[in-house]
Amino acid sequence: MTERTALHDVLDAGIVCHLAYVAEDGTPRIVPTGYGHEGDTLYVHGSTGAASLRGGAGAEVCVNVTLLDGVIYSRAVFHHSVNYRSATIHGTATPVTDPDAKLHALHVITEHIAPGSWDHARGPSPQEFAKTAVLALDLTEAAVKIRTGGPGEEPEDLTPDRVGASWAGVLPLVRAWGTPQPCRHLPEDVGVPDYVSLRGPQHGPQ
Amino acid sequence: MTERTALHDVLDAGIVCHLAYVAEDGTPRIVPTGYGHEGDTLYVHGSTGAASLRGGAGAEVCVNVTLLDGVIYSRAVFHHSVNYRSATIHGTATPVTDPDAKLHALHVITEHIAPGSWDHARGPSPQEFAKTAVLALDLTEAAVKIRTGGPGEEPEDLTPDRVGASWAGVLPLVRAWGTPQPCRHLPEDVGVPDYVSLRGPQHGPQ
Repeated sequence: MTERTALHDVLDAGIVCHLAYVAEDGTPRIVPTGYGHEGDTLYVHGSTGAASLRGGAGAEVCVNVTLLDGVIYSRAVFHHSVNYRSATIHGTATPVTDPDAKLHALHVITEHIAPGSWDHARGPSPQEFAKTAVLALDLTEAAVKIRTGGPGEEPEDLTPDRVGASWAGVLPLVRAWGTPQPCRHLPEDVGVPDYVSLRGPQHGPQ
Repeated sequence: MTERTALHDVLDAGIVCHLAYVAEDGTPRIVPTGYGHEGDTLYVHGSTGAASLRGGAGAEVCVNVTLLDGVIYSRAVFHHSVNYRSATIHGTATPVTDPDAKLHALHVITEHIAPGSWDHARGPSPQEFAKTAVLALDLTEAAVKIRTGGPGEEPEDLTPDRVGASWAGVLPLVRAWGTPQPCRHLPEDVGVPDYVSLRGPQHGPQ
């Protein structure tokens, strides 16, 4: 798998990212937020009133998406670890202000978080559109780290008297979609659409 | 539920956190890392060679733990959202260097990531102990944000002709432990201990 394919796989599997930026007082801040990606661009969005987007617009940010896939039990506490897939993007966040580009970015973000819904839900009103800020980040310098497999052990812990002294292995963490819960206002004859009930196992280890 | 109880519930439910710090060049950095917590203290650990711990030690950091509980489908794309539990801690990261305090912190972190394993696995050798750095953060100023429930909608989207125009509700995201996978070196007669096989549903919505 190429680094680029791995990057897109991680971004596909995640739903929210963590965005870090430096506040005006020089301290680091971090916010979880929705995102979408297309080609070499990552889009994040939020309220235009959000400090994260004011602080991040035109400034250096760092975005991370991490999927936790399991806990690794080693024979030595030092080698306890986790299996994960993680993507990190550093760069300058560019505000997306052109109306067509911004609407497209919102489409990309919406289809990432709730695939299939854009064509069915009401689009943004002028007021809603104005209240939403979108930032774009270049993905070409993004880095991916993936850990899979069992514990890495010291040779001293694999000797016949030590190798079975404590359990060692991986406890996988599995994610799955639960049963859709209709909004209490929804008329009973409105069934769950395929784009919700058949949503792929996007977020977990496949 | 008090804010303090909610904070500890979120920290109990998460396994890794995201740590943000400001690098020497003034740009923000973010790393996912293991943690543990006890009373009013959050501990994070990592290699003494890790830039995150060098950059973070004695400096301002921001830590976030977020559990994603579901995707909210609204009748309006603007109101699509997610249900989540999130804890954010700002503060000065204090290196834990006293050997007894550091060993205790490693115990807390290990028991958070792999509960029950500390008493069975080999403890850190002097070299392993020296290679591990631990930072402590004060939790008294931590903030918790939790979103539950269905979509928030505009009155215009709840009129008789609009209320059933598209599906609206929550698609829950559920986490669960999978089947333990023994290390390939483990003798076959070593069974999975209760602290692994009976591990509670710590990471998901209960």
